[in-house]
Amino acid sequence: MVNEEIMKSLAIKTESKIVLLVTDGIGDLPSENNKTVLEKAFIPNLNKLASKSACGLTDPISCGITPGSGPAHLSLFGYDPIKYQIGRGVLEALGIGMELTSRDLACRGNFATLNKEGIITDRRAGRIATELNVKLCTLLQDKINQIGDVEIIIKPGKEHRFVVVFRGDGLEDALSDADPQKVGEKIKFAEPLDSKAKKSVETVNEFMKQATEVLKEHHPANTVLLRGFAKHPGLPTMKELFKLTPAAIATYPMYKGLAKLVGMDILETGESLSDEFKTLQDNFSRYDFFYLHIKKTDSYGEDGNFEQKIKVIEEVDKYIPEVLALKPDVLVVTGDHSTPALMKGHSWHPNPFVLFSKYIRVDEAEQFNEKECVKGGLGRFPAVDVLPLMMANALKLQKFGA
Amino acid sequence: MVNEEIMKSLAIKTESKIVLLVTDGIGDLPSENNKTVLEKAFIPNLNKLASKSACGLTDPISCGITPGSGPAHLSLFGYDPIKYQIGRGVLEALGIGMELTSRDLACRGNFATLNKEGIITDRRAGRIATELNVKLCTLLQDKINQIGDVEIIIKPGKEHRFVVVFRGDGLEDALSDADPQKVGEKIKFAEPLDSKAKKSVETVNEFMKQATEVLKEHHPANTVLLRGFAKHPGLPTMKELFKLTPAAIATYPMYKGLAKLVGMDILETGESLSDEFKTLQDNFSRYDFFYLHIKKTDSYGEDGNFEQKIKVIEEVDKYIPEVLALKPDVLVVTGDHSTPALMKGHSWHPNPFVLFSKYIRVDEAEQFNEKECVKGGLGRFPAVDVLPLMMANALKLQKFGA
Repeated sequence: MVNEEIMKSLAIKTESKIVLLVTDGIGDLPSENNKTVLEKAFIPNLNKLASKSACGLTDPISCGITPGSGPAHLSLFGYDPIKYQIGRGVLEALGIGMELTSRDLACRGNFATLNKEGIITDRRAGRIATELNVKLCTLLQDKINQIGDVEIIIKPGKEHRFVVVFRGDGLEDALSDADPQKVGEKIKFAEPLDSKAKKSVETVNEFMKQATEVLKEHHPANTVLLRGFAKHPGLPTMKELFKLTPAAIATYPMYKGLAKLVGMDILETGESLSDEFKTLQDNFSRYDFFYLHIKKTDSYGEDGNFEQKIKVIEEVDKYIPEVLALKPDVLVVTGDHSTPALMKGHSWHPNPFVLFSKYIRVDEAEQFNEKECVKGGLGRFPAVDVLPLMMANALKLQKFGA
Repeated sequence: MVNEEIMKSLAIKTESKIVLLVTDGIGDLPSENNKTVLEKAFIPNLNKLASKSACGLTDPISCGITPGSGPAHLSLFGYDPIKYQIGRGVLEALGIGMELTSRDLACRGNFATLNKEGIITDRRAGRIATELNVKLCTLLQDKINQIGDVEIIIKPGKEHRFVVVFRGDGLEDALSDADPQKVGEKIKFAEPLDSKAKKSVETVNEFMKQATEVLKEHHPANTVLLRGFAKHPGLPTMKELFKLTPAAIATYPMYKGLAKLVGMDILETGESLSDEFKTLQDNFSRYDFFYLHIKKTDSYGEDGNFEQKIKVIEEVDKYIPEVLALKPDVLVVTGDHSTPALMKGHSWHPNPFVLFSKYIRVDEAEQFNEKECVKGGLGRFPAVDVLPLMMANALKLQKFGA
């Protein structure tokens, strides 16, 4: 991608509309019958779309690099994922709807189990029920809301997971996890990775001590582990960089959090695909950029569940005509990264990519899958170029130079 | 492309010869019968060339970015178009055939209309006839040829447009436009954007005052607006960077100007394609790099004239055997950018690219068009890599490292 300053100077506000449909982890590896999930699935609408689109393959970050959800999405949103590295704590906090300020240091927490000898025996406190988690977080918040001049904000996630935000001046994020990462060890306190993080380390370790004291009668959730310390990254918004008015439709906290970080409005939606596509329809007049996120292709990929991954993409397929009926100026269907069911995890393989607009060279790729996209006219390109390409096809970029 | 210092250290002088044939704006979008201009045209020689060449697609600047002629050509000449941005005033001066020196500050001018209250009522002076423009520029040049130690050079363009070159020492281009950009405002003088531009600002604003005085009885062309101030960019030459002895064959001033900026000799030629190819033949022994520019593929693309765009490329096709008969070590045929007749303007779509030499992997692309080049062995790559690739195929680059 050309640099941000140039994108900023070329972007113009228009009425045209872009839909970016991210089927998370859709890229796959051939397994049974030497076919990928996309090759096996019955997806007539996606295949028809591919046959009249410009196709290609995108690298989320760089050749051979397996991304997490954060950098993979930032790329798709037009942000250099190497320049903008976002800590897990921040993503988690945004994901459960916490509003962060530029003074905040956020981290992920686990309730965990200490035995009488002070040894950690379960890093997830037996995956306590979410209801108990809520209660314990309320208890912690009541007892610990300030350490020195730093405000402490605690919010529950699911099961044993929660988020702590440390709000104060001078909190840097160059500190190690307060988590031994395995059982059979004592509580591990945070350590500074840079002398500037002294205040952060003192505050975090004081929190660890106080929290363990507060929880001491609450076995199995009688201590906490904190990790992924991260400052709010203060990204420029998509409005600032690209003059877009963007909205996100997503069901999982992480993706809402990512979208919020780049300044998208998060639209209220339900849990089902039907809800998500309905939300797109209902809000279509109100925005010029829509990010619609389908989580379950990734979840089933992570589970190694071929059949269910196929079913999800087959269900997505049914909504494609509805999306096209909205007449978006640009429709992209792709993944953020591959999650081959065979590997049960994210991978480095490029994403099948399909772009439909009025201004494309339709190519010889006839289907939406990995092999066909190799024939695509867009070739193989970095995912960070997707946003400029969508904007170009929506006629939202002026000419560079004379 | 590897950086300039590395290219400089690898380049060697040899007898081998490179011909870069730029069919301006040749890249197209499918229209009637779902075919592009190149797919419709009868171009047996170009197709035969493609079938025995290495083919691909090039991005002039970056994915999704529509370039002007300046940056698109700089890329093909091996210059990073982001690093070397050439100001509008310089391009305009080159476009009307002015010779620039490294001491020059150039800008675009409009004749405009002031009412009795000193308010600009027309930024184009009713688009006065070019003949009147020529007369007024002569008048201005007679009355204002020097301000302090700065020489003033004024040349008419079309209708209300002209160019002013300020030639003197210490003229920087960090100044704002002397143009309110809209009617209903008073004359706007230039302002410094950096203290180094003090002399430029004083000279420009004195010119504005004197010009308005000279023109006061010439309503509707009774004042001037100046914008796009730009210094001569002082590019390193192709000889310095690549050890080439390059020549340009072009009919339009803009392209001769761009070629001169990178140190090419501009060869005298006529207006027709026949003249241009004759000039190539006549001078073939004298240089080792030839840039031959065909303008009209772009012009007809800009007009949305499919049929004429087809005719021009069919005419180019007839000269291909003559070029091959010269036995260049490397022949490239490509465009600087796409100008789809459908869009009547430049676009971001990559350029079909064909490279013929002794040292290529011939690929499955059988024809010179957008779709066939997708099959090309060179894939999709940045246009700034074209120069190193041509030099490599001409055995003009040494090994990098041991």
